[in-house]
Amino acid sequence: MLGAIEAGGTKFVCAVGDEDFKIIERVSFATTYPEETLQRVFDFFDTYPQVKAIGIGSFGPIEVNKQSQKYGYITSTPKTNWRNFNFLGEMKKQYSIPIGWTTDVNAACLGEYKVGSAADDHSCIYLTVGTGIGGGAIVKGEIIEGFGHTEMGHIIIRSHPDDDFDGFCPYHKNCLEGLAAGPSIEKRYGIKAENLDANHKIWEILAYYLAQALVNYTLILRPEKIILGGGVMNQVRMMDLVKKEFSFLLADYVETPDLDAYIVTPSLRDNAGITGGLILARQAL
Amino acid sequence: MLGAIEAGGTKFVCAVGDEDFKIIERVSFATTYPEETLQRVFDFFDTYPQVKAIGIGSFGPIEVNKQSQKYGYITSTPKTNWRNFNFLGEMKKQYSIPIGWTTDVNAACLGEYKVGSAADDHSCIYLTVGTGIGGGAIVKGEIIEGFGHTEMGHIIIRSHPDDDFDGFCPYHKNCLEGLAAGPSIEKRYGIKAENLDANHKIWEILAYYLAQALVNYTLILRPEKIILGGGVMNQVRMMDLVKKEFSFLLADYVETPDLDAYIVTPSLRDNAGITGGLILARQAL
Repeated sequence: MLGAIEAGGTKFVCAVGDEDFKIIERVSFATTYPEETLQRVFDFFDTYPQVKAIGIGSFGPIEVNKQSQKYGYITSTPKTNWRNFNFLGEMKKQYSIPIGWTTDVNAACLGEYKVGSAADDHSCIYLTVGTGIGGGAIVKGEIIEGFGHTEMGHIIIRSHPDDDFDGFCPYHKNCLEGLAAGPSIEKRYGIKAENLDANHKIWEILAYYLAQALVNYTLILRPEKIILGGGVMNQVRMMDLVKKEFSFLLADYVETPDLDAYIVTPSLRDNAGITGGLILARQAL
Repeated sequence: MLGAIEAGGTKFVCAVGDEDFKIIERVSFATTYPEETLQRVFDFFDTYPQVKAIGIGSFGPIEVNKQSQKYGYITSTPKTNWRNFNFLGEMKKQYSIPIGWTTDVNAACLGEYKVGSAADDHSCIYLTVGTGIGGGAIVKGEIIEGFGHTEMGHIIIRSHPDDDFDGFCPYHKNCLEGLAAGPSIEKRYGIKAENLDANHKIWEILAYYLAQALVNYTLILRPEKIILGGGVMNQVRMMDLVKKEFSFLLADYVETPDLDAYIVTPSLRDNAGITGGLILARQAL
C-alpha cells in the first residue's frame, strides 16, 4: 500500500492507494497551522501501518535541491506560518519509510504522465491556471528541475494591445501570472470571473497570454502533450481560444501533435495531484 | 576510438578522439552539396577503421523523433539542397557502427555539460547568439527533447520601448531571434555589428532581449548553468549587460547560483560541438 499527500495552501488531501495507483481511501481538511495540520496527516496515516512509502506534492516555493540544507522545506511562501517549515523532516521523524517530495504541480504532472492524459507520451507539461499559475514538466520520465523547481507561471510575455491592466504579480507585475491568473479578472473589472459573460473580450485576452506561454514552453521543451487545468480553464470558450491563438503565434514554425490531442484537459481531474503522490511514493521505494 | 561530425550550414568539422573525448585529429571543410560533402566525411572516416561509433551534431531543423519515418533527416532547412536529406541513413549505409544523432546546439550543450563549463553540474543550457539564435538543454544527463528538438531561439519576448525595429524572423518577425540575432544589427543600422561602437545603445537593447530569454529559460528549466556563445557575445560589454538585465527582470523571484557562476562562456570554445559529438558517439555504443 502507498500513501500520498497533496498539500495545498487552503486544503490538504491525504490518501492511500494500491500499487496500480488506485485510491483506496482519501480524506481532505483545511490547511491551518503546520503543527495542527500535520497532526491530522499523522492521524490519517497512523491508521495505515501497511503503507510502504509516501509521496508529497506540496504548495511552495519549496526546496527540492538535495544539495541544500533546506531540502524538504517550504521556503518563502506568503503563508507566514509555513515559511521555513521542514515539512519533509517532520514527516520523516514520524515515519521511517521512504518519502518522495516535490511540488503540487509536479505531482499532478506525474499523475497525468503515468496514468492520465499523457499516459501514452514520453513528455508532458501540466499547467494550472487559477488563483495563480503553476506548472510542472516531465521529459523522458524525469521531472524537470535543477537548482530548484520550475516556476513557469512567472515567465515574461507581451501585453495585449487592448489590455491596459498593469498586472498584479508582486514580483514582476505583468508576468504571465500577473496578467492571466484568475484574480486579474476581478482586479480589472471588479467582477468575479464566473459572473462575466462568455463573450466578454477578457477571455480572448487571457487566451492570448496563455497561448504565448504555451508557445514558449513548446519551443523550449517540445513536449508531446500540454495539460491545462485550473479554474480559469473552466470557462467554456477558453480551450478553443487558447488553441486558436497558439496556432496563430507558433505560425507552423515547429510541428506539434494535432492541437486537439496536444492541448488537453487533465483526465484525472481533481485527483491528478494525489495520484501523482502515490506514484512519487512508488518511485521513492 | 570515437568519431564526431559537427555539421554546420557553412562548414563541416569531422574529428576522431579518444575515450576521454580528447580530439586526436580534426578536419574542416565547406558545406556544399550533400553528396559532395558526405564524400569528404567518408574520405576522413574511411582512414579510421578503428572508430567504434560516431556522433553527429547537425544544423537543422532535423528529425530527432525516433517514432518518425524521417528520423535522421535534415527537414525544412532553407538550404534547399539539404532539405529532406537522410543524413543519418546515408551515414549508416556507409558504416555499420552505432551512430548518435542530435542538433549542433545539443551536441555543443553535451560537450559543455560533460567536460566543459558545466562539468560539475547536473543541468545546463547552451545558447549561441550569432547569425541565428539556437539552444540546447540537458537536465539530469538527458537532452531535453520530445516531439522534436528545442527551438529556444524563437521564443516570444517583449520589444524594448526604445527599439522600433520590427524584427526579421520570417516566421515570427519579432521573436527572440528576429530581434536579437546578429543580422538584426545590420538591418537596423546598415552597419555590421563589429563596426558599431561598444557604447552604442544597441548592446543594451540586445542584452534586454537576451536577458528576457534567460529569465524564461530559468523559470521553465531551473538549470544550474547557462552557457552563452556565438558572435554577438564577443562584444566585450554583452556579458555584463545581460547579467545586469537578467538580475533586474528576475527580481529575485527564484534563486540562481551567483550570476558570475551561472551565466558563463563556453570553456571548450569552438570545440564544444565536436567534443559533444564524441560524447554522443560514446553514448551510442
